[in-house]
Amino acid sequence: MKVAILGTGMVGQALAAKLSEVGQDVMIGTRNAEETMSRTAPGMFGNPPFRVWKEQHPPVSLGTYSQAAVHGEVVLNATSGSASLDALRLAGEANLNGKILIDISNPLDFSKGMPPSLTVCNTDSLAEQIQRALPQVRVVKTLNTVNAMVMVNPQLVAGGDHHLFISGNDAGAKAKVVELLKSWFGWQHIIDLGDIKTARGSEMVLPMWISLMGTLKTPMFNFKVTQ
Amino acid sequence: MKVAILGTGMVGQALAAKLSEVGQDVMIGTRNAEETMSRTAPGMFGNPPFRVWKEQHPPVSLGTYSQAAVHGEVVLNATSGSASLDALRLAGEANLNGKILIDISNPLDFSKGMPPSLTVCNTDSLAEQIQRALPQVRVVKTLNTVNAMVMVNPQLVAGGDHHLFISGNDAGAKAKVVELLKSWFGWQHIIDLGDIKTARGSEMVLPMWISLMGTLKTPMFNFKVTQ
Repeated sequence: MKVAILGTGMVGQALAAKLSEVGQDVMIGTRNAEETMSRTAPGMFGNPPFRVWKEQHPPVSLGTYSQAAVHGEVVLNATSGSASLDALRLAGEANLNGKILIDISNPLDFSKGMPPSLTVCNTDSLAEQIQRALPQVRVVKTLNTVNAMVMVNPQLVAGGDHHLFISGNDAGAKAKVVELLKSWFGWQHIIDLGDIKTARGSEMVLPMWISLMGTLKTPMFNFKVTQ
Repeated sequence: MKVAILGTGMVGQALAAKLSEVGQDVMIGTRNAEETMSRTAPGMFGNPPFRVWKEQHPPVSLGTYSQAAVHGEVVLNATSGSASLDALRLAGEANLNGKILIDISNPLDFSKGMPPSLTVCNTDSLAEQIQRALPQVRVVKTLNTVNAMVMVNPQLVAGGDHHLFISGNDAGAKAKVVELLKSWFGWQHIIDLGDIKTARGSEMVLPMWISLMGTLKTPMFNFKVTQ
């Protein structure tokens, strides 16, 4: 399947590496491919510059947001939350319409220092903002409550015995995304929270997630809903 | 131990019944005890009027917020979030100073219909508002992420194999509350999220909790942090 990933950071890299490994035809989209490839500074979390990663992953192609959106039958938004709406505007509504957009972004605001707050929450969510901006795109929110390494390999935490959450207005799109999450990454336990409004809930888990990372001193954890 | 519980709703009732059962000397505080005892309408969630519950639990005494605050060596805030600051003002700063206040409330706003939003979140929390209003009280946020039945009997969900979260500025108060939660209710797994600011995280879990209750069609669940 042709898959587009918007965003060249740790999340985009982890997704692209795994999807390429399992045989998908992956294009990563960025604002300016030349500029992205010319960067030499490490990323925000100490990850190597994109070109180092790219040299290690020759099957993954790099294009503009728009080229990637044209390429993908399914599009994953792995940009930082503060950049997502702009990146999707550049990707082009016409290139995205009718497609499934898996929104992984979190509306984290790092501008006031650590820990980050959220730029939107409670009565709105980034997923809803994206769905309103792109009414004909089938937005499905998921994967945003786990670290990039766990996203693509849930077995790394408690043998996969924990939950992923999914929100979206389109039942068919959600069913398709559940199927992809299972076949691409091996996710076994996925809870449908409801329509896209319920993405408020999964985005608002981030403050606790960040506290837990501090307490547990690792990002390699996840929530299991026990009954 | 002399324990005060502020609030006569389902949470207050569940806590009082259990604490009385395990031998604590419990007084419930309310705005106006006569008015509370005269109510005949069922509660917001269909629970019986307080006087029915009270007749079934003779060892539990009822007083004003202030009388309860004087009575309690430890005070539990089980009022609804929108009423908490006012209830604590009536309880009296002088009656609470130096004591541990276990804050269980959630800042839920039911005024705009279901599902509720939060009255405060992200850059502040109800727990922080309470701590600022009562700077000499040892505020510990906990129990707010589970249903009242699970609060007092965690074994009802997955044999107790799930987590409770705790936040507060006073390490000694948190250690004491952990001890009480174990001995009173049998909580086995309690994660210290950090200072009172981290209560933002546990309060912001509520929107997802409410979605999960809808999806699972039961409030008898909890989060387990898996690693």
